[in-house]
Amino acid sequence: MRQAQETLRIATQGPGLYEITDAVSRWTAGQGITTGLLTLYSRHTSASLVIQENADTQVLDDLLHFFQRLVPDGDPLFRHTAEGPDDMPAHVRSALTATSINIPLGQGHLLLGTWQGIFLFEHRAQPHRREVTLHLMGD
Amino acid sequence: MRQAQETLRIATQGPGLYEITDAVSRWTAGQGITTGLLTLYSRHTSASLVIQENADTQVLDDLLHFFQRLVPDGDPLFRHTAEGPDDMPAHVRSALTATSINIPLGQGHLLLGTWQGIFLFEHRAQPHRREVTLHLMGD
Amino acid sequence: MRQAQETLRIATQGPGLYEITDAVSRWTAGQGITTGLLTLYSRHTSASLVIQENADTQVLDDLLHFFQRLVPDGDPLFRHTAEGPDDMPAHVRSALTATSINIPLGQGHLLLGTWQGIFLFEHRAQPHRREVTLHLMGD
Repeated sequence: MRQAQETLRIATQGPGLYEITDAVSRWTAGQGITTGLLTLYSRHTSASLVIQENADTQVLDDLLHFFQRLVPDGDPLFRHTAEGPDDMPAHVRSALTATSINIPLGQGHLLLGTWQGIFLFEHRAQPHRREVTLHLMGD
Repeated sequence: MRQAQETLRIATQGPGLYEITDAVSRWTAGQGITTGLLTLYSRHTSASLVIQENADTQVLDDLLHFFQRLVPDGDPLFRHTAEGPDDMPAHVRSALTATSINIPLGQGHLLLGTWQGIFLFEHRAQPHRREVTLHLMGD
Repeated sequence: MRQAQETLRIATQGPGLYEITDAVSRWTAGQGITTGLLTLYSRHTSASLVIQENADTQVLDDLLHFFQRLVPDGDPLFRHTAEGPDDMPAHVRSALTATSINIPLGQGHLLLGTWQGIFLFEHRAQPHRREVTLHLMGD
């Protein structure tokens, strides 16, 4: 059993789902591990991780719009407004999705389903540089 | 440290929580590992994983009804309607719950709490065949 | 590769986010593992795990209030009311957040982002004793 770690850096330009499947698969394939467990970890509290359909970009737009309606920017419920009207909603949307995700690896490939892609979900309006830690364990 | 992998297949008949605790526990117990980490992974974007109370089936019904009210079928917000009125809501309900879950293993048993059961959460109306990948690592 | 396990016990006094970052970091640092994967597991269906901002306690209050508004105590949708008006909402809030979370470990430290803290999210009104299982794997 061996381990490998990497930090993926993603430059985001406003709210939305940024696909990282290719970058993650490429790094994983280069580690010489055929059976194992990949863990992805978002080092942020206003950007999260989601596994979603990557066949139709409308799905990604609809997902974004749903979370924007469920947790609207400027919601008067929130008292933490010092960092802008989109900051506290970004924290809630992160809590509602995932900070860490695992994907098993078999026969040298991530065992993603046919329609599954891996996405960083950016919740803030301003451009950000995001970090996703990759951790791989296996043989 | 060793690893084991398996694919669990679940035939679903419409929306609801399908308990897989027994199948998961049985497979885990047969791997000869006493201390370790089990990971469950749903290979779908319209069926997810939940750990929930398995003592009272009313809890499962209420959970289902909550998610159906929070993300209603046919919600006019959604533009991705080509796969039916329940498809996009299924993606959102999956994003709101879990694609992967870990359960530690100690003294040969999954360290589930007293009331915890493991469920596949089916979000689509039509029957489906679902796959949950099990990955176990330990000694 | 080695493993270590521990059970963290947290006494809660009503709904809210209880920070466990220090206890988790301290235990992790004492295991003599420099590169690895930490898994946290909540052994409950009415208390969950969240990674969130720990710089401003207003964020934690706002998070709590959002989940209380989204899944209100006594919601007439719920039929499972035998354990009190806050029981079924607690199950739903747990399903909407996380039962298990992973944090990679590098150079002897948890790779938490600058603003990230680890929290047990208590959803029940009465005091409870909660258990979070820690599982660490690495070299």
